Amino acid sequence: MAGQLFDLVLFGGTGDLAARKLLPALYCRFRGGDMAPGARVIGSARQALSDDAYRTLLEDRVRPHIHAADFDSQVWNDFLRHVEYVPTHAGEASTFNALAARLRAQDDRARVFFLATSPSFFTDICQHLAAVGAVTPHSRVVLEMPLGRDLASSRAINDIVGSIFSEDRIYRIDHYLGKERVQNLLALRFGNTMFEPLWTRSWVHDVQITIAEEVGVGGRGEFYDHTGALRDMVQNHLLQLLCIVAMEPPSSIGADAVRDAKLQVLRALKPFTEADVHSRSVRGQYRAGASGGQPVAGDLDEPGIPADSHTETFVALRVDIDNWRWAGVPFYLRTGKRMQERLAEIVVNFQRVPHQILEATRGAFAHNRLVIRLQPDDALMLQVQAKTPGDGMRLQPMSLSLSFEDSSRMRRLDAYERLLMDVIRGRLTLFMRRDELEAAWQWVEPIMHGWAASNDAPKPYTSGTWGPAASSALIGRDDCAWHEEA
Amino acid sequence: MAGQLFDLVLFGGTGDLAARKLLPALYCRFRGGDMAPGARVIGSARQALSDDAYRTLLEDRVRPHIHAADFDSQVWNDFLRHVEYVPTHAGEASTFNALAARLRAQDDRARVFFLATSPSFFTDICQHLAAVGAVTPHSRVVLEMPLGRDLASSRAINDIVGSIFSEDRIYRIDHYLGKERVQNLLALRFGNTMFEPLWTRSWVHDVQITIAEEVGVGGRGEFYDHTGALRDMVQNHLLQLLCIVAMEPPSSIGADAVRDAKLQVLRALKPFTEADVHSRSVRGQYRAGASGGQPVAGDLDEPGIPADSHTETFVALRVDIDNWRWAGVPFYLRTGKRMQERLAEIVVNFQRVPHQILEATRGAFAHNRLVIRLQPDDALMLQVQAKTPGDGMRLQPMSLSLSFEDSSRMRRLDAYERLLMDVIRGRLTLFMRRDELEAAWQWVEPIMHGWAASNDAPKPYTSGTWGPAASSALIGRDDCAWHEEA
Repeated sequence: MAGQLFDLVLFGGTGDLAARKLLPALYCRFRGGDMAPGARVIGSARQALSDDAYRTLLEDRVRPHIHAADFDSQVWNDFLRHVEYVPTHAGEASTFNALAARLRAQDDRARVFFLATSPSFFTDICQHLAAVGAVTPHSRVVLEMPLGRDLASSRAINDIVGSIFSEDRIYRIDHYLGKERVQNLLALRFGNTMFEPLWTRSWVHDVQITIAEEVGVGGRGEFYDHTGALRDMVQNHLLQLLCIVAMEPPSSIGADAVRDAKLQVLRALKPFTEADVHSRSVRGQYRAGASGGQPVAGDLDEPGIPADSHTETFVALRVDIDNWRWAGVPFYLRTGKRMQERLAEIVVNFQRVPHQILEATRGAFAHNRLVIRLQPDDALMLQVQAKTPGDGMRLQPMSLSLSFEDSSRMRRLDAYERLLMDVIRGRLTLFMRRDELEAAWQWVEPIMHGWAASNDAPKPYTSGTWGPAASSALIGRDDCAWHEEA
Repeated sequence: MAGQLFDLVLFGGTGDLAARKLLPALYCRFRGGDMAPGARVIGSARQALSDDAYRTLLEDRVRPHIHAADFDSQVWNDFLRHVEYVPTHAGEASTFNALAARLRAQDDRARVFFLATSPSFFTDICQHLAAVGAVTPHSRVVLEMPLGRDLASSRAINDIVGSIFSEDRIYRIDHYLGKERVQNLLALRFGNTMFEPLWTRSWVHDVQITIAEEVGVGGRGEFYDHTGALRDMVQNHLLQLLCIVAMEPPSSIGADAVRDAKLQVLRALKPFTEADVHSRSVRGQYRAGASGGQPVAGDLDEPGIPADSHTETFVALRVDIDNWRWAGVPFYLRTGKRMQERLAEIVVNFQRVPHQILEATRGAFAHNRLVIRLQPDDALMLQVQAKTPGDGMRLQPMSLSLSFEDSSRMRRLDAYERLLMDVIRGRLTLFMRRDELEAAWQWVEPIMHGWAASNDAPKPYTSGTWGPAASSALIGRDDCAWHEEA
């Protein structure tokens, strides 16, 4: 594809996300030929810096985050020539004039404002951009998630942003949807017939979606204590993955067809009653333990976390989808910090064989299982029972693994590379629409309220484990087990 | 499992099958510990040989057929001590007395007569065995296929053999059913839930079963000209594989449950009308060409083949199964000599995606496909469409392959090892029952008669190709293509 012509303004341009993810991704797309000669990345933040000073900053802070295999100093220097900097301050509208002056008005030049700042600045930035006339009818804005901290605050942000940008110009980014393997799940479901007949309550026993982190709250204590795992991970990433698994086949891969299908799932989620909050949710908080062989502190001893904090660092939920396809099939969602391993995966367990005529070799007869692993590695495995070689007719579990041999020459895109180029090209499919976001908040709120109303503290769990025992009990009650314990 | 105590009499003990397959298989099972100390293999043929002379013969003719990895000269010498020889002549009943005298009557000693001779001797041998009192109530007889050359001759053999051995003592052997991968197909179908919902007319587009040989008729010209591919391969091997693919789930893996299920398939095969013989069958005969880079002669120039022979060396059929599961799904069977490669495989092509929302990368959008390869290698592959790595949402075909890593330490059993031990242990599941055999003949006969009545010669095809063009046309008419041409 030809290089794209654009001005991409990166608010939070000196921040962590920009340095670790966004600028390396833009460099890689530049290297891949996706940036036309006049395309520009305009960093912006409070700090007063010249273009050159900003470039020097990137040299120090961005370059270390580019994979050695992707790095080429000639290309990097060329890339820096496409990078500029304009300071802005969300608290002062006047600082946006210089930015407006820097932008180029050309019909074929896309204009993108990427808000890689705290969500608390989103509305100010958008209003200032409008005030200085920087928002052309074709400008796009990218908002990092989570957007708000509940339905009301998310609505407030969406109302203001929506008064300045039309909905089809707002890109709410969830980088999990940019991951190759998540898109592969769409490809598998809708590019093959063979999964469709299996993909119903008749043949699926349960679904498990896990995003486990090894890290603790780290330097983000203050932010995290105000947020917690439910807002930080469940409301956005886990529910988005659930939608991709559970949605009906859309009539096209276009943005509205896909997002309508996801919205239907979110609206079909069975609401949590007060009783459900107790019986179908587990919140946990890590205690001291070990991570990577080193002793680590508990959450309450982390900087920025009050000693009596009830903020959860772990959540496990049993979710039900009230529709014909999924009624009665438990979807288990789980996320936590300081878990035993860094792991993100979707596991679909199929029903057991209704009538067993062959013997199993080792212990219990296992489910057929589809595992889509997103982290730490990219993998797709289908677990089947096959005959044990040799005499007799005994079964043993074996894996069919997707081989990417044919395509191993192709470099995999990082999630942000994919999503940034989607914004620049105007492809909304992998971004969240306002109604989706609000449906997610609406469903999550009773859980937040239930916890807040409860006197129960989060269940403690030792750092470096798979969370509190209550998490195993939650799933065990339905005669299931988390994949790694199965 | 403990070693088995048995007397196994091997008629045709100096023949080709004994040397290439049966004695190497028995040696391997001896090495694997399946033969108890007093177990004996008693070779028998017309030739007058002492035990020692027979052992010397085996040294020359059997040893070269044992894989180097399996060979151990100490074990081989031990094995030979379990081998004896008694000459018999099917034309002379009196020659069987010495054999009867050699057999040991013990309650725990299995007695097996393996008839690795031309089927024309089967009834004589059985009658002589009965006459000399060698057939105890627990004796078993093993008959190599094809049994007879039509329904009448097969009935004649079965009537006589059946008057001497009860049906549950008759082991009609089809070595394709002894192949590890064929049994794995049983394991896959009935050890997993995930194939069952796919395994119907709703989701299967077509099934292809191919047994292709690279060799020509070789030294068997006279036999082969009298037999042809339909009798030699379709009536037994191909129909048996079709039964394993198409059968309903049996209530157990027991012999009668499985054989009842296979019989139901054979009885549901749509009979060929005279018109069908023309439109749904292709018979071919190879002409000169190349095999393995060497020029080879045509069938009509092979020794033992009359210059005006109409015997087919290639068959392709479109078969229909008239039942609820399979109505309308074409099953294509194909076998031939002097084909491009040695290949035996079962291919299940699933339906196309009903509504395509993603683009295909390369040419036409491929079916989902399950390939079970029996020869030359053992493989199980599931072809799916996955996302092409990189930007966009394009699909490309990729393979999920069954990995036997876990069990690679285990030696695979050769088909005859498996089947011989099944006979000795009294397991009938993988052997054909009389009603199955007769149903197969009954279904095959109209094709034989249709060809005989026709004035058309078999379609010529060049050695080293996939058969006559009519074979591609047969399947192309249904908008299908043979797997290797797809």
